[in-house]
Amino acid sequence: MKVRLDRIARIQAAMRERGWIAIVVLNHDDYRYLFGTDRAQPRALIPFQGPAELIAFTGEEPELRASLAAGEVRVFGSVGGQIHDVVGRLRELSAAAPASWAQDGRFKVGLQMWFATPAFLVDLFRQVNPEVEVVSSDPVMDPLRMIKDAEELASMTEAQRIAGVGMARARELLRPGVTAHEVATEATYAMMRAGAGGTSTPIYVNFGVETCMLHGRISPAPLERGQLVLVDLTPQIDGYCANLARSFVVGEPDARQAELIATYREIVAAVQAEMRPGVTTAQLDERAHAVCVAHGFGDYHVYGIGHGIGLRFEEPPAPTIIPPHRSLPLQEGMTVTIGHTVLAIPGFGGVRFEDVYRVGAAGPEILVDYPIEPVVSA
Amino acid sequence: MKVRLDRIARIQAAMRERGWIAIVVLNHDDYRYLFGTDRAQPRALIPFQGPAELIAFTGEEPELRASLAAGEVRVFGSVGGQIHDVVGRLRELSAAAPASWAQDGRFKVGLQMWFATPAFLVDLFRQVNPEVEVVSSDPVMDPLRMIKDAEELASMTEAQRIAGVGMARARELLRPGVTAHEVATEATYAMMRAGAGGTSTPIYVNFGVETCMLHGRISPAPLERGQLVLVDLTPQIDGYCANLARSFVVGEPDARQAELIATYREIVAAVQAEMRPGVTTAQLDERAHAVCVAHGFGDYHVYGIGHGIGLRFEEPPAPTIIPPHRSLPLQEGMTVTIGHTVLAIPGFGGVRFEDVYRVGAAGPEILVDYPIEPVVSA
Repeated sequence: MKVRLDRIARIQAAMRERGWIAIVVLNHDDYRYLFGTDRAQPRALIPFQGPAELIAFTGEEPELRASLAAGEVRVFGSVGGQIHDVVGRLRELSAAAPASWAQDGRFKVGLQMWFATPAFLVDLFRQVNPEVEVVSSDPVMDPLRMIKDAEELASMTEAQRIAGVGMARARELLRPGVTAHEVATEATYAMMRAGAGGTSTPIYVNFGVETCMLHGRISPAPLERGQLVLVDLTPQIDGYCANLARSFVVGEPDARQAELIATYREIVAAVQAEMRPGVTTAQLDERAHAVCVAHGFGDYHVYGIGHGIGLRFEEPPAPTIIPPHRSLPLQEGMTVTIGHTVLAIPGFGGVRFEDVYRVGAAGPEILVDYPIEPVVSA
Repeated sequence: MKVRLDRIARIQAAMRERGWIAIVVLNHDDYRYLFGTDRAQPRALIPFQGPAELIAFTGEEPELRASLAAGEVRVFGSVGGQIHDVVGRLRELSAAAPASWAQDGRFKVGLQMWFATPAFLVDLFRQVNPEVEVVSSDPVMDPLRMIKDAEELASMTEAQRIAGVGMARARELLRPGVTAHEVATEATYAMMRAGAGGTSTPIYVNFGVETCMLHGRISPAPLERGQLVLVDLTPQIDGYCANLARSFVVGEPDARQAELIATYREIVAAVQAEMRPGVTTAQLDERAHAVCVAHGFGDYHVYGIGHGIGLRFEEPPAPTIIPPHRSLPLQEGMTVTIGHTVLAIPGFGGVRFEDVYRVGAAGPEILVDYPIEPVVSA
């Protein structure tokens, strides 16, 4: 456990500026960002001042304390009593905070409100802490987390390299009769042997018309010659997510397949040319849309060509999840994908090529330049 | 896609009894339970009468319609307009429902409130549908889902068999110097090759003092001779979850390790002897507690010896998640684990042996009788 005191200090400063008494961490990604490790039930409380507080079960306490430098964090553990402990701490913090921070008598507490935050936990939290107001922790966490430091970039680059190992293994298995499950099994194995801790999403391997699905999963029927194939891989290193998607055709592409592939390659090039600090993802989408229109695919264009990525598979800027993020200007140091949306003809099939980029001062810096080689001889 | 009209009809009958106008499905497990398949973004609406309604993106609509028998379900898809569609449908259903169902002018809509239901989606749902009241769908869904039919049991038994394949592979790799990551990689590969679609939780492989952690993850340091090992495997078949946990010692166990192992074996036997329809999980915990006390481990006992399992890794009865479930009587046809909680000496290590059982009329029926062989020669 490597407690990131620097990050905690910046978060506390931002909380004090906003007049929040605490952030309660219930998610793997924030826990890892602050404590340099992960556990099955990540629970912590970051008060507006003083050391961070880990919430553990009694039996885990010695193990946690042993991994911490003295005074770095406070551990409180009790079987079944965690909720009670948190209520008590929030009361203490309310009493210690400037009264001016309260609005209508209630102090603000930040929670991550994202896919991994269960609704019933938040409802329970609100119920047992009626004197605090739950707010999304994004305004405090996003400015830090969106900008990746060198250590984070190294993990993400390694994850992306491993995604390439998996993609190469997947591609060499593509032949008529192979099942999507076999491709997924072998790609997963190749990525884990290369060091991946797992994948941040299920692996997607889709054949034929199922390549239309937005994030399809595993196609049930074996691959046939001439079908489109879509493989999307998301291995993780130290919690950091990769995202590599490639389309293939086994055999010679027909005219529509070839046109979809050519169009998507043009979309990627056009969006790469536009990506730089100050540009919004909405502007990137406009570029993608223009390419689709030029190829007669305007009706099939779907917005959301890119999204932020890091300790979460999709994180800010996340235009397809949080619509206002469409107008969030890119900043140097963000990590963003290009190639998120499928270009699909309904009932026929779709293609996409997705990679991860760092937003550099002069333009996009691809983390790993994995080849686009869609035609697989069969 | 195999729409389960029988289940939908029972759900609709239960909704009408309670005066709910709809259940909105946002989760993989309910989606699979009702539609026999899964997709990355499961979205459906079950109205209190009439066909179920799938919510898809426009590009996915032909594919979904092609897989459905006519009249079975209604598909409505629109990019970005799904929220609007749902609001509109709930208004129509409110207008069509008996006025007596409304309380304070608001009609009830069921949502699954569980780990996979994101808080921000529920908050958004409440915000855009102010004239309905969100209630947990558990009272309607649980009575159906807790009792497994023959087809479900077959999937669960196959998943549990595959967990055994993974455990055998993990066990044969245990030797001084092996890493937890290598064990997890090879066990995952063995399970996927045997047919698993993936795992419902990350694989847990823990060494030494880390076996104390409640659901630890992957230990960082290589295995040393004499350390306790805990492996917990959760492969899935057709979405149904297995749960197989085994403790090992590489080399001869020392006295404390041997005592922990012997105690846990006695706990499992005692709880098996108690498990039958009508008994509560609290009563099972009391049996486990008594065994711990008899061995001088009373202080280390943790409640939660068993939990329901099916399309969710933990589902009702789920005493450690939903405390009132502690007093829910077991029913014939439930599938419940024994061995969920670790018996751990803080700072030393812990053990457990977990398997899945069907609650039979005469007692527990283990799905797959995988051996308990904790001592690995090294």
